[in-house]
Amino acid sequence: MSQFFDDIAIGDRAELGSYTFTRENILAFAGKYDPQPFHLSEEEAARTHFGRLVASGWHTASVFMKLNVAAMKARAQEMINAGQRPARFGPSPGFSNLKWIKPVYPGDTLSYRSTVTGKTPSKSRPQWGLLHFDVEAHNQDGALAFCFCGKVFVERRGL
Amino acid sequence: MSQFFDDIAIGDRAELGSYTFTRENILAFAGKYDPQPFHLSEEEAARTHFGRLVASGWHTASVFMKLNVAAMKARAQEMINAGQRPARFGPSPGFSNLKWIKPVYPGDTLSYRSTVTGKTPSKSRPQWGLLHFDVEAHNQDGALAFCFCGKVFVERRGL
Repeated sequence: MSQFFDDIAIGDRAELGSYTFTRENILAFAGKYDPQPFHLSEEEAARTHFGRLVASGWHTASVFMKLNVAAMKARAQEMINAGQRPARFGPSPGFSNLKWIKPVYPGDTLSYRSTVTGKTPSKSRPQWGLLHFDVEAHNQDGALAFCFCGKVFVERRGL
Repeated sequence: MSQFFDDIAIGDRAELGSYTFTRENILAFAGKYDPQPFHLSEEEAARTHFGRLVASGWHTASVFMKLNVAAMKARAQEMINAGQRPARFGPSPGFSNLKWIKPVYPGDTLSYRSTVTGKTPSKSRPQWGLLHFDVEAHNQDGALAFCFCGKVFVERRGL
């Protein structure tokens, strides 16, 4: 979000864009952070419960952040072009209820979106408000593959 | 976990090892997955609420998986050396209550550990049991920096 806390409404939705998981980017992420057999090799994956190569769930999650940052930067640039100052990017205290619902195979494209579900002004940090949002990623067949409930501090206007 | 579901007890703890976050690996992760100013540049970070360069929270989380997989593989090898078959690595349906508690700066070393908190046999997947565990990562000063409550399917013995 590049808008200020005060200008965001519950129900606001942002389409964050899509990402295609390829054999190459699946292997690159897994080799560094999740070197399990079903993330590294078609042959080894065939002998596991997945049956074929799948992306690491941490890769699916990290791609959310990649797309989210790109969307925030694009929105910030739009605001700058319109003569407005975008809100500062804030920290996140964490998140909950992350679910890996569908396997993500090479060639799958996930489309991520974020919907605002709640707003909590912060007493201890009056310059920030805590925004609650649901993230969902659907695959090219329209099936929900990944979701979680996030939180992030967003700058308040004029403080 | 490379042990079978049936051989794991609530309270079992695994020390997963340590990882030192360097300027280089912080920038490498952030450049690919979380290109926010406070993860990419000392100068830009100095102008944000963090005040200095910090690791992406998704990097902190992905490093858990890296260390967890290495620990599982080491344990599996020990079992093979002892003439036992290790349990197969299972999928995870997701996790909850992830908290980024302390910023992680270049030079910080986090030590990760995992503690079993619950066991649920699966009716729909009789060959697997669902293991519940808490992950904690402490920094070099002993402060809790990161935690979450995880779930993973673990193979049952003799099915």
